[in-house]
Amino acid sequence: MEPVERAPVWFMRQAGRYLPEYRAIRAKHSFLEMVRTPELAAEVTIQPVDLVGVDAAIIFSDILVVPEAMGMELTIEEGRGPRFSDPVRLYKQIKALTDANIVQKLSYVTEAIKVTKEKLNGRVPLIGFSGAPWTLFAYMVEGEGSKDFHHAKQMLFTRSEDAHLLLRKLTDAVAQYLIAQIEAGADIVQIFDTWAGILTPHDFHEFSLEYIGEIIRIVKNETHHDAPIVVFCKGANHSLSEIAATGCDVIGLDWTVDLSEAKALLGNSIALQGNLDPAVLYATEAVIAEKVDAIARSMGGPRGHIFNLGHGITPDVDPENARAFVRAAKQAYRKETAHA
Amino acid sequence: MEPVERAPVWFMRQAGRYLPEYRAIRAKHSFLEMVRTPELAAEVTIQPVDLVGVDAAIIFSDILVVPEAMGMELTIEEGRGPRFSDPVRLYKQIKALTDANIVQKLSYVTEAIKVTKEKLNGRVPLIGFSGAPWTLFAYMVEGEGSKDFHHAKQMLFTRSEDAHLLLRKLTDAVAQYLIAQIEAGADIVQIFDTWAGILTPHDFHEFSLEYIGEIIRIVKNETHHDAPIVVFCKGANHSLSEIAATGCDVIGLDWTVDLSEAKALLGNSIALQGNLDPAVLYATEAVIAEKVDAIARSMGGPRGHIFNLGHGITPDVDPENARAFVRAAKQAYRKETAHA
Repeated sequence: MEPVERAPVWFMRQAGRYLPEYRAIRAKHSFLEMVRTPELAAEVTIQPVDLVGVDAAIIFSDILVVPEAMGMELTIEEGRGPRFSDPVRLYKQIKALTDANIVQKLSYVTEAIKVTKEKLNGRVPLIGFSGAPWTLFAYMVEGEGSKDFHHAKQMLFTRSEDAHLLLRKLTDAVAQYLIAQIEAGADIVQIFDTWAGILTPHDFHEFSLEYIGEIIRIVKNETHHDAPIVVFCKGANHSLSEIAATGCDVIGLDWTVDLSEAKALLGNSIALQGNLDPAVLYATEAVIAEKVDAIARSMGGPRGHIFNLGHGITPDVDPENARAFVRAAKQAYRKETAHA
Repeated sequence: MEPVERAPVWFMRQAGRYLPEYRAIRAKHSFLEMVRTPELAAEVTIQPVDLVGVDAAIIFSDILVVPEAMGMELTIEEGRGPRFSDPVRLYKQIKALTDANIVQKLSYVTEAIKVTKEKLNGRVPLIGFSGAPWTLFAYMVEGEGSKDFHHAKQMLFTRSEDAHLLLRKLTDAVAQYLIAQIEAGADIVQIFDTWAGILTPHDFHEFSLEYIGEIIRIVKNETHHDAPIVVFCKGANHSLSEIAATGCDVIGLDWTVDLSEAKALLGNSIALQGNLDPAVLYATEAVIAEKVDAIARSMGGPRGHIFNLGHGITPDVDPENARAFVRAAKQAYRKETAHA
């Protein structure tokens, strides 16, 4: 009998606060200390593999380490989230940022990847990642998370040359960073464009997707590892065809699109990752399984599908429910096959 | 020579904090006091007509007056936003909410509409509004604004019968409320589904759009004023055809959809309202005009178009820029015609 095929499952922020085992380590170390200490980063990276049963690990880190390595001062205050004390607003600040030695400055990440790979010992693949230029830009110019990103958008609209200069620098930095992650052992890399959805389709193409495409070209040209690239542009379902055209291998989808529609639009040429509403993890095991099954039906079959949430898991989710999601995802297509 | 046709312009939250004249009144009265005092509500409702030049007034009020009239205690703290001290979580709380005498309890709104109509004296039409059942539900169950509406979604997923019971009650309340507004003189009414975009398409249809459609059927059946109904479901561009099928007369669009695509999808049977990115008002007058012109080009012609922002104006916008938007919107299609 042939083995029944299924879609792999992992989820965004799977190494995180919803796990008591994570909080136990976090109680002894600051977030940035954990990010910068390869042994600690590796430990929490592997936790969800052991504790939740996911099919891939994703390196524990933060997207804002890139702007920090380019010269910005990053602080993370309890309960307030990450912040840059001196946001990038002026041309001279953009000029002062540099992607020189970015890989060396971020060697704690590549080191964490190496340590993790060794500890994983081939059990599951390891995913590396970076923020997309636009999302990094939004934080760097605003200084922190925001409802409307007043300053970031003001720069796009009134000083688009400066904006493009900064986005260009970020593109070079992110490309080098992803290449270094792949060379250190990352089997897959994901580009997170968390703030894609606050742009008009036109602005998304000009200020975000163009640069994501450039990063993919550089990474594909300059590595020989053939590591698949996942692009996750939250809230940019208006541009799925254009995202596919960047040459990425997988599109990460939030929960506001039906997989059957995405698949009908994109065909079988690209894999789809997602897209359970993260809030479903506040429900019961039975509801979680039902919603996961609905995704499997919508997708039609496991080929070209990676189960994931449509955004990061939230800290107040019961780990039992995260496990229920993983179990349901592992069973979903098997049920379909059994019914067929 | 025939007069050159143009699209009317107004914008969401146009009676609001970005205007110093509004803040002068707000300095002397609490927000809820202004909402509940017809003379004050009428005064700030008319301000943007006089000060900014918009083509319609929208009654100054808040969507949360409906849950309050149904029995909830609403508080608005400075800097924190509106809040219900006792969120609706239990079946008995849902049962206790009532739409009885809702119109009488909200007579301060219908009175404000009458006063405003008298003061406007036919200069511009007056728009009434209500929150959509799902958006009201989200606030009532969560107790306040939220990133992921943990409790509201938990009720949808684990106690959908309770959720539907509450949504049904809200539907009846909102329908009566809108009818009362129309009978008091509102020329147009808008249904705001601010939180539509946090639902999957499937959940949006089940928990939101179904009820919006029901409200429209009731309002259209029970009034003889033929007041057009605008439906604004922020972030639900995945379902524009389904929104059009509710029987609404106008679809309000956020800025994450291109008007040319919306028009291609929907044809000329329904009017489109929107959809400038509100953050464009942080730019310069020239940029504002350029972005407004791009919307006009995308729309193709003024017929069936109402200029608006894609969401409410933000408090830190310079009123000069709000005026620049209105001027540009009034000129946009005239330029097109001149070019033709």
